[in-house]
Amino acid sequence: MVGRDIDDLPKNAANYTALTPLWFLERAAQVHPTRKSVIHGSRHYTWHQTYQRCRQMASALSKNSIGVGTTVAVIAPNVPALYEAHFGIPMAGSVINPVNIRLNASTIAFLLGHSAADVVMVDQEFFPLAEEALKIWSEKSKSFKPPILIVIGDENCDPKGLKYAFSKGAIEYEKFLESGDPEFAWRPPEDEWQSISLGYTSGTTASPKGVVLHHRGAYLMSLSGALIWGMNEGAVYLWTLPLFHCNGWCYVWTLAALCGTNICLRQVTAKAVYEAIAKYKVTHFCAAPVVLNTIVNAKPEETILPLPHVVNVDTAGAAPPPSVLAAMSERGFRVTHTYGLSETYGPSTVCTWKPEWDSLPPEARSKLHARQGVRYICLEGLEVVNTKTMEPVPADGKTVGEIVMRGNLVMKGYLKNPKANEEAFANGWFHSGDLAVKHPDGYIEIKDRSKDIIISGAENISSVEIENALYSHPSILEVSVVARPDEKWGESPCAFVTLKPGVDSSNEQYLAQDIIKFCRSKMPAYWVPKSVIFGPLPKTATGKIQKHLLRAKAKEMGPVKTSKL
Amino acid sequence: MVGRDIDDLPKNAANYTALTPLWFLERAAQVHPTRKSVIHGSRHYTWHQTYQRCRQMASALSKNSIGVGTTVAVIAPNVPALYEAHFGIPMAGSVINPVNIRLNASTIAFLLGHSAADVVMVDQEFFPLAEEALKIWSEKSKSFKPPILIVIGDENCDPKGLKYAFSKGAIEYEKFLESGDPEFAWRPPEDEWQSISLGYTSGTTASPKGVVLHHRGAYLMSLSGALIWGMNEGAVYLWTLPLFHCNGWCYVWTLAALCGTNICLRQVTAKAVYEAIAKYKVTHFCAAPVVLNTIVNAKPEETILPLPHVVNVDTAGAAPPPSVLAAMSERGFRVTHTYGLSETYGPSTVCTWKPEWDSLPPEARSKLHARQGVRYICLEGLEVVNTKTMEPVPADGKTVGEIVMRGNLVMKGYLKNPKANEEAFANGWFHSGDLAVKHPDGYIEIKDRSKDIIISGAENISSVEIENALYSHPSILEVSVVARPDEKWGESPCAFVTLKPGVDSSNEQYLAQDIIKFCRSKMPAYWVPKSVIFGPLPKTATGKIQKHLLRAKAKEMGPVKTSKL
Repeated sequence: MVGRDIDDLPKNAANYTALTPLWFLERAAQVHPTRKSVIHGSRHYTWHQTYQRCRQMASALSKNSIGVGTTVAVIAPNVPALYEAHFGIPMAGSVINPVNIRLNASTIAFLLGHSAADVVMVDQEFFPLAEEALKIWSEKSKSFKPPILIVIGDENCDPKGLKYAFSKGAIEYEKFLESGDPEFAWRPPEDEWQSISLGYTSGTTASPKGVVLHHRGAYLMSLSGALIWGMNEGAVYLWTLPLFHCNGWCYVWTLAALCGTNICLRQVTAKAVYEAIAKYKVTHFCAAPVVLNTIVNAKPEETILPLPHVVNVDTAGAAPPPSVLAAMSERGFRVTHTYGLSETYGPSTVCTWKPEWDSLPPEARSKLHARQGVRYICLEGLEVVNTKTMEPVPADGKTVGEIVMRGNLVMKGYLKNPKANEEAFANGWFHSGDLAVKHPDGYIEIKDRSKDIIISGAENISSVEIENALYSHPSILEVSVVARPDEKWGESPCAFVTLKPGVDSSNEQYLAQDIIKFCRSKMPAYWVPKSVIFGPLPKTATGKIQKHLLRAKAKEMGPVKTSKL
Repeated sequence: MVGRDIDDLPKNAANYTALTPLWFLERAAQVHPTRKSVIHGSRHYTWHQTYQRCRQMASALSKNSIGVGTTVAVIAPNVPALYEAHFGIPMAGSVINPVNIRLNASTIAFLLGHSAADVVMVDQEFFPLAEEALKIWSEKSKSFKPPILIVIGDENCDPKGLKYAFSKGAIEYEKFLESGDPEFAWRPPEDEWQSISLGYTSGTTASPKGVVLHHRGAYLMSLSGALIWGMNEGAVYLWTLPLFHCNGWCYVWTLAALCGTNICLRQVTAKAVYEAIAKYKVTHFCAAPVVLNTIVNAKPEETILPLPHVVNVDTAGAAPPPSVLAAMSERGFRVTHTYGLSETYGPSTVCTWKPEWDSLPPEARSKLHARQGVRYICLEGLEVVNTKTMEPVPADGKTVGEIVMRGNLVMKGYLKNPKANEEAFANGWFHSGDLAVKHPDGYIEIKDRSKDIIISGAENISSVEIENALYSHPSILEVSVVARPDEKWGESPCAFVTLKPGVDSSNEQYLAQDIIKFCRSKMPAYWVPKSVIFGPLPKTATGKIQKHLLRAKAKEMGPVKTSKL
């Protein structure tokens, strides 16, 4: 027995360093200095330039005493500056807080105050929003200290916006970079557990919580994402997914690891997506199911079909209806279905495709494809548990339990929220709040968020299953089903529906009856929605339908009366 | 300023676990329980079975008090048991020491004694070798304690061998597994810095040093290898590279991460490689340049050409001659050229291919392809430095310096060898001992091992450059150039040559003159070998030519006399 000899070899400067995605950028600049890193309209950067610009940012921040223990908020759509901020800010030791641009001023004021932002970088289009948020913050908080205000210009926007920002004392982004050293000698964090990013939950639930991620996790997620998606060196990635949404599921860093090319988009439309595919030979993009819906329902003149090459799509954010998955495949997109939360660095489970499924009929294939699947390579634990006993549910495809995760792709915790942390990390697992079953093959499938389940006559009804059925109705573009109070049953399903363009919506009564009839042929009687409401659906910035608002609306409508049946 | 709040979120059971490749096996068994994991002749295992067998091994070892702080030596060719040992042994907390099967008994005795092996697992074919090694060890060491001796049977071998091992008290491998629990609840290491593997340097230099690797590094290298090679989910990997050679460059664990399939080979021949490609649809294999040479020079009846599908080859271990790289490409192999050492978990630099090279003439392409390239994704530092000043050499493609590395793919250290560790880790870098230049594009190119450089009249001559030129001579199969003492110049180049089959070798004098003439047309006069010796070249187990033996031979020959010129 060699005893501890075999383990007695200490860390040193040659054989140990912190894991951080910042290394990827340095490497990309070394390996592919002249390859395009970021493209935004007529602006093209190379990896050498991006690396220099990020070091300039880090240097300029450092000169302003922004370092470890500080946060920098960025309020911007998917423009190059937001990409650069994901490297420049942590290179200075600080934490990036990319802010959801579709939030209102008072919510942003809350976030800035909660994170005590030391710097606010804001895209010129969103300057008035930031200005208002800062005003609210300053009025509400006694300890308010004005952050450094930086405005990001864009030649595609009205120059007046930038002028206005200058008049309010904001520093121009490019000027700010110029004040920094392009050869700035950044250092990796002392401890890879150091925070790299702060992102507030997008508000499908009540009050936003600040999800804190660390360098180690960001590094591992970046590699995991590439491996799970089969995304190789030199990938061309289109930014349809907001970068502010868990750092674009960490693909912001993956692209540097793969020395790929980032195509920015200020606004996501079906036309813009197809054009980018043709122009830049896009190989990969991510999309919430609602974005898939937009692509599937694009007008023929907006599309470029058949696709000139295979395009890989990673979809996550909500269970995509099988019908949408099938339609994407028909158009030649190779869809990878993943699932996760801000708390798990973005998607951390994947419906790993099995070659033996290729020969199944399309409907069966889509059904299998709609499952949330198995754990990511760098997530070490995934289970569906009975919420009371914490015991795994049987793998029978029927018994519903809560999805729990653990391992290196689970967040550091919620910022300044010990109660939420205690609940989230109870019993050694991260609690997702999502309800699922486990199939005999070990793949999990979401049935609902725990708060989205409808309890009718003591029976649990999955709103997702009703929605999936409704998505195959020929007139329905989008649908969301929530609980409405019910005199007799306690709750009953209420469907909020957006019709496809061109559908005659003059007779809502008739349409509602038709939809209810359709449901009767597809599901048990007690699942059939008793109310059908037409109109646009409220959504979060990432395209998630805000069920809590619909639930509130259904509540306002008052209980379904038994006589109505 | 939020102060330390943003960092004050501790590790807990839900959001942190040690990085270890053992997680990959658990995942493979969950995601692809019925997919083939390991194939060896008529024996086929699934990932479910491999996981169970590894847990059985861990359980059986634990029952025998083999845990943290112990080492288990495995003496075997690329058979399933050696694959399993890479998981089963670390699952028990112990360290695997895969032993080079081409070493002699006294060297193996030294290794077993140095590592104080608690268990020796040996393939039945190598049992007599192990027996002799144990005998030598027991005779030489007073503290010798007989290790647990396990023999691995193989139906493809003579059953007498197994019977003999039993008669000597060895436990049969399958019996040993049966004594373990297939549901054994293994735990990841407490600390990811814990050692996972011990491998002795293969002996191109004098005395073997024990390279110790840890769980963290093995995990990162497994992922790095997949990303660098573009090796995706479900890869089919052929084991031509010995598993005992830095754990098969960590691909042993990559295959579990990718839920791929391992094809074992007891003996590597060109015929066996081509057959496996056709039969199992092999997508990837690794090979030292000498193995490439075997494939390139295979007789037509041993080949299956054109290849039925693209086969990816990772070659490393010595600078492959451009002519061999070109010949592989012609046959349809997609060769990735990497470089590294046992001390860096195997290859840790790669000649990343640039699309713009595609349009160059074949010779220019091969020349670029023969460079050692850039750092791996998970290696954080790679430099070529002046050995005296430790300053980086200019990127001029001319100035020779030593390759140094640092980061997470650098070994923990040498076992019980503080002096070697001090030298290896001097100045915060790992010193490779290899001499290289850095090209203007940042790619490095090996010129020689520091001890292989030939110093003639105070001028440095790269033996590798002479070899590369000689490989394009039509009669030469293999060549190695070393320094021979020289009366006038101190040293001069001496070429050891193996001729291609079919070349008339009756007139060595004439052949030598022809080769020297060939060299005169290709290189400066002082590089031209003054001596040419014919015959087979001595090689290590991994196919590396043992230059130190040739150097010794050249020395024995005595100095080149000036009158000879």
